[in-house]
Amino acid sequence: MTSNTVLPALRRHIATLGLDGVVIPRFDAHQGENVAPHDERLRYVTGFSGSAGIALVLADRAVIFVDGRYQVQVRKEIDLEQITVSHFYDFPIERWIETQLGSGMRIGLNTMLAPASLHDKLDKAMSAAGGELVALDADPVDAVWTDQPPPPLGRISPFPLTFAGETSHAKREQIAQKLAGLGADLMVEAQPDNIAWLLNVRGSDIANMPMPHSFLLLDRDGGVEWFVDGRKLPNSRDDFELDGVAVRSPETLLEALARRAEGRSVLVDPQFAPAAAGLAVNAANGRVVAAMSPITVAKAVKNGVELQGFRDAHVTDGIAWTEFMTWLHDTVPGREVAGDPLTELEAEARILEFRQRGDNFAEASFRTISASAANAAMCHYASSEATNAPITSRGPYLIDSGGQYFTGTTDATRTTAFAPVGEDIRNAYTAVLKGFIALMTAQFPEGTTGHQLDALARRPLWDLGLDFDHGTGHGVGHYLAVHEHPQRFAKVHNPHALATGVIMTVEPGYYRENEFGLRIENQVETVAGPPGFLRFETLTLAPIDLGLADCSSLTAKEKAFLNDYHRRVREALSGRLSASAEARLQAWTAPIAP
Amino acid sequence: MTSNTVLPALRRHIATLGLDGVVIPRFDAHQGENVAPHDERLRYVTGFSGSAGIALVLADRAVIFVDGRYQVQVRKEIDLEQITVSHFYDFPIERWIETQLGSGMRIGLNTMLAPASLHDKLDKAMSAAGGELVALDADPVDAVWTDQPPPPLGRISPFPLTFAGETSHAKREQIAQKLAGLGADLMVEAQPDNIAWLLNVRGSDIANMPMPHSFLLLDRDGGVEWFVDGRKLPNSRDDFELDGVAVRSPETLLEALARRAEGRSVLVDPQFAPAAAGLAVNAANGRVVAAMSPITVAKAVKNGVELQGFRDAHVTDGIAWTEFMTWLHDTVPGREVAGDPLTELEAEARILEFRQRGDNFAEASFRTISASAANAAMCHYASSEATNAPITSRGPYLIDSGGQYFTGTTDATRTTAFAPVGEDIRNAYTAVLKGFIALMTAQFPEGTTGHQLDALARRPLWDLGLDFDHGTGHGVGHYLAVHEHPQRFAKVHNPHALATGVIMTVEPGYYRENEFGLRIENQVETVAGPPGFLRFETLTLAPIDLGLADCSSLTAKEKAFLNDYHRRVREALSGRLSASAEARLQAWTAPIAP
Repeated sequence: MTSNTVLPALRRHIATLGLDGVVIPRFDAHQGENVAPHDERLRYVTGFSGSAGIALVLADRAVIFVDGRYQVQVRKEIDLEQITVSHFYDFPIERWIETQLGSGMRIGLNTMLAPASLHDKLDKAMSAAGGELVALDADPVDAVWTDQPPPPLGRISPFPLTFAGETSHAKREQIAQKLAGLGADLMVEAQPDNIAWLLNVRGSDIANMPMPHSFLLLDRDGGVEWFVDGRKLPNSRDDFELDGVAVRSPETLLEALARRAEGRSVLVDPQFAPAAAGLAVNAANGRVVAAMSPITVAKAVKNGVELQGFRDAHVTDGIAWTEFMTWLHDTVPGREVAGDPLTELEAEARILEFRQRGDNFAEASFRTISASAANAAMCHYASSEATNAPITSRGPYLIDSGGQYFTGTTDATRTTAFAPVGEDIRNAYTAVLKGFIALMTAQFPEGTTGHQLDALARRPLWDLGLDFDHGTGHGVGHYLAVHEHPQRFAKVHNPHALATGVIMTVEPGYYRENEFGLRIENQVETVAGPPGFLRFETLTLAPIDLGLADCSSLTAKEKAFLNDYHRRVREALSGRLSASAEARLQAWTAPIAP
Repeated sequence: MTSNTVLPALRRHIATLGLDGVVIPRFDAHQGENVAPHDERLRYVTGFSGSAGIALVLADRAVIFVDGRYQVQVRKEIDLEQITVSHFYDFPIERWIETQLGSGMRIGLNTMLAPASLHDKLDKAMSAAGGELVALDADPVDAVWTDQPPPPLGRISPFPLTFAGETSHAKREQIAQKLAGLGADLMVEAQPDNIAWLLNVRGSDIANMPMPHSFLLLDRDGGVEWFVDGRKLPNSRDDFELDGVAVRSPETLLEALARRAEGRSVLVDPQFAPAAAGLAVNAANGRVVAAMSPITVAKAVKNGVELQGFRDAHVTDGIAWTEFMTWLHDTVPGREVAGDPLTELEAEARILEFRQRGDNFAEASFRTISASAANAAMCHYASSEATNAPITSRGPYLIDSGGQYFTGTTDATRTTAFAPVGEDIRNAYTAVLKGFIALMTAQFPEGTTGHQLDALARRPLWDLGLDFDHGTGHGVGHYLAVHEHPQRFAKVHNPHALATGVIMTVEPGYYRENEFGLRIENQVETVAGPPGFLRFETLTLAPIDLGLADCSSLTAKEKAFLNDYHRRVREALSGRLSASAEARLQAWTAPIAP
């Protein structure tokens, strides 16, 4: 809890700026899910440590807006006498401004930390409230944050063609052509994974995210200005594909835009580029083309080398999964009997060790969700010393975990148990399994989008009057972000069609608060089906625990899928495992009676 | 083909207006699917008789834009030397204007015939082309149409409370409250079904559509100005609920808006109200609130009396269906053997006769699709003397037909055959049947929208690499339009959640060009399921022909649905049929082996 001293300092500072308040987004200038300690401004000011939120600090009060996931956590973390809580969706900041803010107010926003979509919403709300949103070019929190950690300086490496499969030059040509097609002369890019993909580089500014923070301008002739801290690059850049790339200091991005935008059309992604970029273009008498970055679209369709890399990574990852599950089942009963039960944190550490034995492994692709019994009911649980629960026969155990391999990024979830489960869990797990199979086996026309397929995975749960409150799957980067735009399986509208080469996860689940959580997740590659149709091929190769399922209620087709899947797992992994894991593999993948 | 004489006359007229061209929409001022002969302007100018299209007539050329359904028909109907064809979606009018039109052009549009969404698109395109869209207050086609039929003067009747279930006064209060909630002082309504619902009246301006053409202003105090041709109303209006309703001439709508809009907020539906209304509000210094009409939203949720009426109508309709199908199967073989096969038009006439025997029947709810063999491959086929095909044992027969009953509007489709069908048809029909059952039996969380459920009905076809190119179902009015907004099952995004009391159709199909067409359609009512869930109950009560299906490939659940459905049909209709229909009913609804 830091707000007692920070809030007054911040208030004094914004008063000197002639402002009545300031908006503090949770995002950094790159709009990713995770931010560096340097960018934990919302946490510094409010104490709230969650991954999404926004605050409005005024002279006499402060409000933080967080979504349903964080309503409990935020109240534990902030000083409720200093800061009130509002719901991110039910009573969002723009409505708060329109209805609660007095008129004539001047509220500041660091426009490097907000995309145009957020900036425009706040700007409109401030106008409606009879006030003014003031674009700030220096961050007001940084000005008072005396012990602010420095920006990350993670080393940048070249990403070789043997892994990337396509030269940076060819990628730049492809994107430059798309820019021309969109009527843009130039584009601004701030998304770390898009820049890493385009330049065939990788970085290490944030754990689990192997791409550097930087900015980039690409023109329709393929020329690049790369705004990156030179200290992150080695002295010898011979292995990089920097032909045609001018390296600049990140601080000069807006100056460069101001210089180049006059009379030109500049593509600025309204969701993911800093609003400051669009404002700079407008100020320079340029024209903003508001469109999703063409890099986002191109990067989602993996090339042949990337696809083969994913398949290879999943064999390595499948070995780690099977060794881990073997160790888990070998260890849990004895430790429970000995009165020293295995814990979530031990299991999390252990799966990392198994992954570290594999080729091309770099790091985890996200913080593992190692969740026993009731802890698994929290979809985005991360174990800590405070919550570290025992893994025992008294409830199912859920583990959602993945690896960053140079050949691809993995992400899978398995739920297992160490004793027979009750009927409620069995029925729900069987429905999750049926939903998982329904989406894994779907065949669908070209042009189909994720919101069209989402219900296939939910229907068996809906039949029981159950549902789950998260998306059913997301795109996955190639040794990049584990959550990659733009395709997604979810209830909400998603206009981005699936296509051959798009990597997705399939991950239905079911959660009962304070009791248990169940999820089964595989990664898949989208492949061609019959003429005009697409379907999925599994990438994940790890046994699915059928001990929790009521196999008698599976249809013949569902059983056939499971038997075929387990045959593929067995064929891929057999002979590459320890003796005990080999024995477990044979048992876990044995066909079930049709 | 009329364009040889009409186009020159139209061109001379627009020249006198100082225009370089004119846009001719297919719609009338009420944006419905069907228009009166008076409003067949597009057909008069071009010869094209389809239900959707738009033309642009310039001094030296003319272009008509029609969608995929009409690409063949349009080329048969228009003079291709005078008019070129462009694709409504692939190369729409706004793109044509932006890329093909010279600069400096002034193009006219009768803004009573276009909603704001179309007007704004054309206006933007004209600006981009360096020209100007000119809002016309007199229609340029009417000016040259010497033998234009007069506007329809169909008689308006009161719709009694025994059928409507809620007073007009109560409906006006409800909508007035919603207006206040949307921040509007006033709303403009031009949709015939919305006005008929609000005022508890019915009309007869267009066949199959029992609602009058008129306009309406409703203010947030519930006061109404109704702009309707007084000749359509009887002298004695005692049975009408016209308390608080001022009847005005339709020609005075825009004057009234100009008078009332100053300084006020006026809700104008951007998709369904004439653009002229919004322009009038702006000209009067009023503010346009662009939002879907709250009447559209309220009307979709049927009240208890309406719902019971639907259920009653469907018993009556089921009797007609069963008598018709009995007659059909009794008649087709003999007529075929006699060398005088039954025809599509005879069957269409016959189902109407059976409906006319029922209580509360007014007219057909749309032109029946009576389609034999290859004709059924055209989803929106209407038989004519030229296409009137024999109904024989040589292919399946599809009939999509419904009635306007005072108690509700019906719409159903059955496909049948008079000899065993080949394997291709059997497999496709079985997939259609499975898709039909999947959506009929769906249970889903409150808040679910039609685009989320659409794939459930397609999946069995997708599994075979097949699909169908139309929506899977639509809302249905209560003795109003058979296609009612806003809920819809389709691939495209639909933001309007299903809710208890919403009536839908469920109608997957499959079509093979030049060979056959298959569709099964029931009407359903949305009802409450387990807590937080909704599901559907059938309204349609007509046997489904299982003779075309491979019942051995149905799952136990699918068979249970069919047996339960047919039991309900039997229980509802048995004892109310002719002897031969009773015998057929028993056979057609007999349970299949589980």
